[in-house]
Amino acid sequence: MPRTMAVVPPGSRVGILGGGQLGRMLAMAAARLGYAVHIYCPEAQAPAAAVAAAHTRASYEDDQALARFAAAVDVVTFEFENVPAACAAFLAERVPVRPGATALAVAQDRLREKELACRLGIATATFVAVEGPADLAPGLRKVGLPALIKARRLGYDGKGQATIAAASDADQAFARLGSPPAILEAHVDFVRELSVIAARSLDGRIVAFDLAENRHQDGILRRTIAPAPHAERLRGPAGEIARAVLEALDHVGILAVELFETREGRLLFNEIAPRVHNSGHWTIEACRTSQFEQHIRAICGLPLGSPEALLDAEMTNLVGREAEGWQTILRDPGAALHLYGKDEPRAGRKMGHVTRLWPRRDHSEAD
Amino acid sequence: MPRTMAVVPPGSRVGILGGGQLGRMLAMAAARLGYAVHIYCPEAQAPAAAVAAAHTRASYEDDQALARFAAAVDVVTFEFENVPAACAAFLAERVPVRPGATALAVAQDRLREKELACRLGIATATFVAVEGPADLAPGLRKVGLPALIKARRLGYDGKGQATIAAASDADQAFARLGSPPAILEAHVDFVRELSVIAARSLDGRIVAFDLAENRHQDGILRRTIAPAPHAERLRGPAGEIARAVLEALDHVGILAVELFETREGRLLFNEIAPRVHNSGHWTIEACRTSQFEQHIRAICGLPLGSPEALLDAEMTNLVGREAEGWQTILRDPGAALHLYGKDEPRAGRKMGHVTRLWPRRDHSEAD
Repeated sequence: MPRTMAVVPPGSRVGILGGGQLGRMLAMAAARLGYAVHIYCPEAQAPAAAVAAAHTRASYEDDQALARFAAAVDVVTFEFENVPAACAAFLAERVPVRPGATALAVAQDRLREKELACRLGIATATFVAVEGPADLAPGLRKVGLPALIKARRLGYDGKGQATIAAASDADQAFARLGSPPAILEAHVDFVRELSVIAARSLDGRIVAFDLAENRHQDGILRRTIAPAPHAERLRGPAGEIARAVLEALDHVGILAVELFETREGRLLFNEIAPRVHNSGHWTIEACRTSQFEQHIRAICGLPLGSPEALLDAEMTNLVGREAEGWQTILRDPGAALHLYGKDEPRAGRKMGHVTRLWPRRDHSEAD
Repeated sequence: MPRTMAVVPPGSRVGILGGGQLGRMLAMAAARLGYAVHIYCPEAQAPAAAVAAAHTRASYEDDQALARFAAAVDVVTFEFENVPAACAAFLAERVPVRPGATALAVAQDRLREKELACRLGIATATFVAVEGPADLAPGLRKVGLPALIKARRLGYDGKGQATIAAASDADQAFARLGSPPAILEAHVDFVRELSVIAARSLDGRIVAFDLAENRHQDGILRRTIAPAPHAERLRGPAGEIARAVLEALDHVGILAVELFETREGRLLFNEIAPRVHNSGHWTIEACRTSQFEQHIRAICGLPLGSPEALLDAEMTNLVGREAEGWQTILRDPGAALHLYGKDEPRAGRKMGHVTRLWPRRDHSEAD
């Protein structure tokens, strides 16, 4: 029998699956509200464990360790969506896991994500499922060229995907991904990428942060500008997309929806993350409630906080050796530096971020 | 030979003596900059240890534990000024301790504090040292009635002091304090209490936060309003007081100076705290750099951050059972809640605080 305490009051123990920087920032937000945080992850060097009251180092397949973890905490959440389904199910029999199995199952699978969007009437790029090489040629006829092929599972930061420029490239691109279950997507001629981050409380209330504009480089988020400039008229539609997805998944906690804005000014659904998101780091300094605190409030059954932005913000990821520029950043009076305490600045590894802040401009005028 | 590394770069290990809420907020600020924090305190239940990478539970007199601690960290600071002098000296032989022995020695002793102010030409209430009962009558003739008698050492939150309304009360009041070395002070007819919090970097640069107004109740800080209303003309003089004290102590890190504003609009020095201070909690949300980050920057030899306040703030301490009102506070969209993770809400115990925030008004006009 799982414990079913709806409200997990301050002073309780919050378990987090995953020990990276998202878990680290979640842990600090939970601590601020008086929770004791317990991190569960296989890594010995875990940025989140360094700011948590407890750390279980074990595999996500270790049922004994999972059972002890479940007994030691009052609610479980996660910082990454690729939690094995069996792990989430095992924990959910013992302790509330928020968000739940549906959100995980959908967000782990690019095909199910896109199918959900279609079912909700949310526009996406044309896509088609690929089970094997035989699906490639008919798929390309449907989505056109150039196209993207993406593994359905375990993709992040541009990993697990490739561009197909000509039909003759398709077999090789698919093979290079390891021939996994995949989807083919039409190339979208977008003008920019946006994201909307919203939270749903245990009692079904939804609040969204300002729409943010994201710039990627080499598949990795480079910069987020919030609020997205000249996007006031897109805020409502983006919020409606987030609301529809949150409700369809019966989601509890933060969810991010990545969107494309097309040349015609339309929004296309790209993908979701059922968790706190890199494009929401700016909320730590700029908003009355950060995405991390909002997530903790939601999963603990507390009232959601105000997402109001009191400042304008621009967040830049510090990737690989870029974090070595910390001295320059610290000399910039407008910059807030975050370093994640990772020791090895490998290429492509997110080592920290910096948020630059300004007094809020008036974004209400038509644009 | 102490290690003398001036700059302690992010990724290094910061040791903090003391495990309370000030250590907790220091630890989170240090983590944000990429430091691994090691808390040293005798208590098993330590709010700071729950957000730190390591915790040594040992007495401040345990040289073996202190030696291991010194070997495990790159710099040591403290969250309370009553660190035993021998402990600070023992550590300082092994690792940089910032701020240093002078700041501790002066701040631990109300008489030395006041004498320092006098030497620096900073106005204080009239005071006189009390070594024994024979000093009471002549002392009262000097400072007048009513007067305050305060133990020179180990006072905080109104503890270790008493009011003397009539000369005949003096012997009993002194005896009730335990007849310690003490000072007698003239009663000050102040209109309000203010505090200035400033930081001095390793290379001697000084920056101050906005002057704050403090309201006490039963000897405990109840509320801080920042910036202090109608205090623009006092900001310069208060900053000069802080600067003089910081330089005289060769201080590195945050220092708070508590001040009285008299009916005539003059500032009188009350006391100093050579550490982050309860009246600076509002800086977490309202300022570009919080007092906690500023302290970490200073003791690690980093450039100081901007103290600019982007928001107006009012901080209220949650004392004893007041923290049980967290649900009401969470429903207030303008409130930021901090709970310290303490389990027992004893009377007079600081359990958390709440900071209410507003867009910044113009404080520059003459007032």
